[in-house]
Amino acid sequence: MERGYLHSRFPALFFFLALLLTSPAISTKSVRRIQPCKSLVLFFHDIIYNGKNAANATSATVTAAPWANRTILTPMTLFGDIVVFDDPVTLDNNLHSPPVGRAQGLYLYDSKTIFTAWFAFSLVLNSTDYKGTINLVGADPLMNLTRDISVVGGTGDFFMTRGIATLMTDATEGVVYFRLRLDIKLYECY
Amino acid sequence: MERGYLHSRFPALFFFLALLLTSPAISTKSVRRIQPCKSLVLFFHDIIYNGKNAANATSATVTAAPWANRTILTPMTLFGDIVVFDDPVTLDNNLHSPPVGRAQGLYLYDSKTIFTAWFAFSLVLNSTDYKGTINLVGADPLMNLTRDISVVGGTGDFFMTRGIATLMTDATEGVVYFRLRLDIKLYECY
Amino acid sequence: MERGYLHSRFPALFFFLALLLTSPAISTKSVRRIQPCKSLVLFFHDIIYNGKNAANATSATVTAAPWANRTILTPMTLFGDIVVFDDPVTLDNNLHSPPVGRAQGLYLYDSKTIFTAWFAFSLVLNSTDYKGTINLVGADPLMNLTRDISVVGGTGDFFMTRGIATLMTDATEGVVYFRLRLDIKLYECY
Repeated sequence: MERGYLHSRFPALFFFLALLLTSPAISTKSVRRIQPCKSLVLFFHDIIYNGKNAANATSATVTAAPWANRTILTPMTLFGDIVVFDDPVTLDNNLHSPPVGRAQGLYLYDSKTIFTAWFAFSLVLNSTDYKGTINLVGADPLMNLTRDISVVGGTGDFFMTRGIATLMTDATEGVVYFRLRLDIKLYECY
Repeated sequence: MERGYLHSRFPALFFFLALLLTSPAISTKSVRRIQPCKSLVLFFHDIIYNGKNAANATSATVTAAPWANRTILTPMTLFGDIVVFDDPVTLDNNLHSPPVGRAQGLYLYDSKTIFTAWFAFSLVLNSTDYKGTINLVGADPLMNLTRDISVVGGTGDFFMTRGIATLMTDATEGVVYFRLRLDIKLYECY
Repeated sequence: MERGYLHSRFPALFFFLALLLTSPAISTKSVRRIQPCKSLVLFFHDIIYNGKNAANATSATVTAAPWANRTILTPMTLFGDIVVFDDPVTLDNNLHSPPVGRAQGLYLYDSKTIFTAWFAFSLVLNSTDYKGTINLVGADPLMNLTRDISVVGGTGDFFMTRGIATLMTDATEGVVYFRLRLDIKLYECY
């Protein structure tokens, strides 16, 4: 009785209630896709250890360094190389800008025929704007202009966040230096 | 006054409101568990480099290959071996079916006593049906008939997805080839 | 008309509806942050292979073991070492307590100047209380008293979960043993 009365008198209210009860997640998520809840642009700088630059190097091939005399499957595309890195992160494309944090983790090369990499790492940020970490995982087919990887979690100011980071190679210098631009768009914020 | 009046007149309404206010996440999530928002079945084929099959190999042990003469802790279960792979992904169990993408990343063996592995990789799909990546992480106790790992993110057609991939060993041929069946059920779609 | 009538008569109701319609995700998520949906405290025990303790070791450096005669970039902070582990997990800080599962995966050391690590692993739990896996990724600046990493997914009893694990070094014995305490707080449960 009461429900029928309410229904006939307040159809708009019931429409809203029905909407909430049947699809809150879907409606919320579509909105979030269109509009990130947080965006940031960062650069990170990778200086690969080549056997001579220990002072400046920020990363090292730990499985099959090309400068070491070890068997590798396909020297041309570095298949099987795993690189451990601790790269400075800056807000612009200048290696010498004051770092706002570090990118720490690993990447590996995983193709016999083309250059393609796979990343798993953390952005450990410690600046006036952000204190916390962002954890990322994903494939990096680095011959493509842009590549998307997943933000799978975060801590501190990025507590529980999720999103997408679009990678762009901003510069390379031989086999010793590359600079990645990360356009990070977070779609789940707490 | 008003709230008391409303409460007495429309108890059903208040029941719904209370439900929404106290447990929206739980009710939504239960629904999603029962019904995946997307499902797909994929196979991937791993041909391990044995020192002789460079032309066909799709993966390589990069830390302590059994065919190289290096010290390992427990040769029987391959403890400590890290394998980098770039495996073709097909829609059926035929290695020679046209691939719909690649599985790229790493797995490692991590037990001294039994065969058990741990995976972190991306499915990079590029077919008429799906363009995008699915990122996965999890333990693979491969002596079990089925093993569940986590889908922790995705890009492209799998933007921001989460879910579970159930792994089944579909075939093995000595130590050179194995084929995994992945039953992927996605419970968060955008 | 009807909406105006309802509005004037039941302002409190409309306040609740407006709240629900405009920010369900934010309100839900704030609540979840304050109150984890599940909490657990676990310890895991890492006995590093030093070339002599094969019987007891639960982990091994697979890239550049200090006891092997190989070139490493910075011996002091173990930069570039990747360690594969299969560590017993207990409910208290006693290595000899009955294990409730294993911690399986990898960690690596990634700084030239300080001790800092990066983890990617699974807690594979098999006890009377919990059966399932929890997958974790994150930076571990181990000189800090506490460090937060991300729970990025789970299976079984931890189906699709997300959260934060706070790491604390509970004990170390030279370079052979360390014990980590994990305070796991899950904020997304299904």
